[in-house]
Amino acid sequence: MRGGAALRRELTKLLDAERVLCPVPPDSPYNADAAGPWRGLRGAADAVVMPDGAEEVAAVMALCVKQGLPLVPRGGGSGVSGGACPVSGGVVCSMERMKAVLELEPGLWRMRAQAGLSTADVRRLAQESGLLFPPDPGAAEQSQIGGNVATDAGGPHAFKYGSTRHWVTGVEAVLPPGEIVRFGGACRKDVAAYDLRGLLIGSEGTLGVVTAVDLRLIPRPPTALGLVAFLPDLERGCEAVLGVLGCGVVCSALELIDGAALAEVASAYPGAVPRQAGFALLAEVDGGEEETRSARAELESALFAEALQLDRHDELEALWRWREGVSGAVAAVRGGKVSEDVVVPPERLLELLSGFAAGAAENGLQCCAFGHAGDGNIHATVMLDPRDAASMAAAEASTQALFELASALGGSISGEHGLGWVKREALALQCPPAVLDLQRRVKAAFDPTGVMNPGKKIP
Amino acid sequence: MRGGAALRRELTKLLDAERVLCPVPPDSPYNADAAGPWRGLRGAADAVVMPDGAEEVAAVMALCVKQGLPLVPRGGGSGVSGGACPVSGGVVCSMERMKAVLELEPGLWRMRAQAGLSTADVRRLAQESGLLFPPDPGAAEQSQIGGNVATDAGGPHAFKYGSTRHWVTGVEAVLPPGEIVRFGGACRKDVAAYDLRGLLIGSEGTLGVVTAVDLRLIPRPPTALGLVAFLPDLERGCEAVLGVLGCGVVCSALELIDGAALAEVASAYPGAVPRQAGFALLAEVDGGEEETRSARAELESALFAEALQLDRHDELEALWRWREGVSGAVAAVRGGKVSEDVVVPPERLLELLSGFAAGAAENGLQCCAFGHAGDGNIHATVMLDPRDAASMAAAEASTQALFELASALGGSISGEHGLGWVKREALALQCPPAVLDLQRRVKAAFDPTGVMNPGKKIP
Repeated sequence: MRGGAALRRELTKLLDAERVLCPVPPDSPYNADAAGPWRGLRGAADAVVMPDGAEEVAAVMALCVKQGLPLVPRGGGSGVSGGACPVSGGVVCSMERMKAVLELEPGLWRMRAQAGLSTADVRRLAQESGLLFPPDPGAAEQSQIGGNVATDAGGPHAFKYGSTRHWVTGVEAVLPPGEIVRFGGACRKDVAAYDLRGLLIGSEGTLGVVTAVDLRLIPRPPTALGLVAFLPDLERGCEAVLGVLGCGVVCSALELIDGAALAEVASAYPGAVPRQAGFALLAEVDGGEEETRSARAELESALFAEALQLDRHDELEALWRWREGVSGAVAAVRGGKVSEDVVVPPERLLELLSGFAAGAAENGLQCCAFGHAGDGNIHATVMLDPRDAASMAAAEASTQALFELASALGGSISGEHGLGWVKREALALQCPPAVLDLQRRVKAAFDPTGVMNPGKKIP
Repeated sequence: MRGGAALRRELTKLLDAERVLCPVPPDSPYNADAAGPWRGLRGAADAVVMPDGAEEVAAVMALCVKQGLPLVPRGGGSGVSGGACPVSGGVVCSMERMKAVLELEPGLWRMRAQAGLSTADVRRLAQESGLLFPPDPGAAEQSQIGGNVATDAGGPHAFKYGSTRHWVTGVEAVLPPGEIVRFGGACRKDVAAYDLRGLLIGSEGTLGVVTAVDLRLIPRPPTALGLVAFLPDLERGCEAVLGVLGCGVVCSALELIDGAALAEVASAYPGAVPRQAGFALLAEVDGGEEETRSARAELESALFAEALQLDRHDELEALWRWREGVSGAVAAVRGGKVSEDVVVPPERLLELLSGFAAGAAENGLQCCAFGHAGDGNIHATVMLDPRDAASMAAAEASTQALFELASALGGSISGEHGLGWVKREALALQCPPAVLDLQRRVKAAFDPTGVMNPGKKIP
């Protein structure tokens, strides 16, 4: 058990005792995030604090800087890269109590909220006002908007609407050595200074702690319609992705499920999956009713020749529940999975997916792929028993080869999850040494003593 | 005349002699940008180089770093903040020869181009492929895509589509001491490293020289329709802006022209401006034909009660030509203007505009305002004779008060033009000292010896 009486004494000077956990039991949930179950990653925090506001975050940060203790910001703990895992000990700063809605202005299409508000609540509040907050990463009930900002979370609708960064006009953060700052605000345009707002977005808690955000919303499109195309195999599936892009319809989401993943979720599909199907493409279009119907008809024309079956879905809730179930279903096959989030330009999808499958097969692994086809952002997944050390090692080798392939195809090792702890070393694949050095200098400009989430994001 | 024989000798080792201008005649156009005519700002470059590629940019930068000479990147020279003006001498790096289209993939909705390609060419090429590159800053024929990226250029359609930053997936740049790097690329998602791509966007040539860009495009909406509402005065006009936002229609552009500006352009309006009009609101909607017609009808309903007159415009070219003429027309009134680009949340527009008008009147100045109402981004303009030193001084005082007001209203001193040389000192109004220091540390992380466009952007 980490955390001494002296640290507890210091922290309880800054926060009420019931909001300080020190020492931290080894099996505490604060010692892991969602990288725990699959990757076996656990840390050992010296303390956990649950601040009520930015001032308390600043006070805790000042103490960490003074004592040279790591400070690890924590949102909902749904990250799969270990970004919130206290791998080097230190103080975990959980945002769970900071979930106030500071402003909601439906007529002005905006919301300001503390970092701990859940993503699902942000989306619900927008929806109740006739508005849309488009980012829809997985685990919306668990994840927090501050964590979404810290990781620049995506999701299926990022294809049309962009990732979280496109919807954040302002960020309030606490920066070392304990300064509360605000970059941007409610305005939709601001080019006065360097875009430090944008730099903080996706920085995974390594530059500062996000304490509140200004969000841009938009009026909710009145209609959304779905179309599922089943194709015989990966080749025809990847061609279909390019066919959809080329037909000029702007889908609100364009998702793929490869044959191996489809086999695991076929029985749950709201409809009947044709027997010969080796690939499913899920498209959503949204907007005014008339144009949405005509856009779907255009998609049907584009897909008609190659598809085994085209299913219209007017009820999207069941369809999306099915899509969201893929991740759990493929994990259930062997009890676990190693699932990445690489990106390539969409015309390289076939090379990526066939290369990944071949590499996994060589390693004797069962694999599948699903994800955000339009963005070329794929959850390439090895299905395995996490207790099987040999398979885990083989999966890591497969993953490394996947990262190399994605980089070689002009892509990225991460489109959604961030690098956190588990992928930080892979950054060298896509960044030459000069850029890595620059990344480190930027980090040092914010955090010269290196207390902010050390060991994460940068190799 | 600046620039010695020794410098000329060094530069001509790196570039053909005809692409090196050294010495530079004092009246050279390279000694000023569009801040010259109105603000009287001119610099004195030691040399001008016109590189053919990133390698030559890198070689010139290495020389500048070695000799401690300022390096001033220059796009089309259409900036009005003096960002491309060689105020401290040094070498101007003009991108005029680097205008190759490196990739155009209509079916994949993307383009890669060298920095010197004109914004108009980018838009034209996209259009010829059935696509849209939405940013539409003024001076599109003159301005270059690299300059647009360096300033995060906006324009009317930023309201729906976002500024340039939203359409750039990759930036190739030369960074001190002369390293060619690429941040991002063709992929639409990438959260692997810190977003240095985003940091470079809007950095006004103070961190490095943008040499090529990867642009995201979208299929062109088939229909765009216009609506102009005339309102009696500023109060009713600003209410109408909020009414349009509140009605839930997503306009592709929402522009305002106040009474004083309207008076100067009424005769050029494609239609008849009602005599009592003291404010014009120009809305554009785009999308599928059916939904676009119905969106315009909704706008009409929202504006019907307060508007003196509502004009439908199905031919948008004439309407936009009229809107684009405002800037020149108000400059012609007294021969010159001092025109800013402040931003406020849209519910503070009335306070901003009435405060600005009152301040100008106190100073005995004639003023007007026009701009991007939906974004709260306004070209608050003093009309004056630039040879009248007393008026110029009064205009600067008015401008300072405007910046203070915009900052106090939770806004920004610049939504489009950047700070360049003429506005850098005003940054302190919206950034506290700790954030200014951080901005300087970020600059130093890129440019430790301070050769990149010194004196610009940061006070």
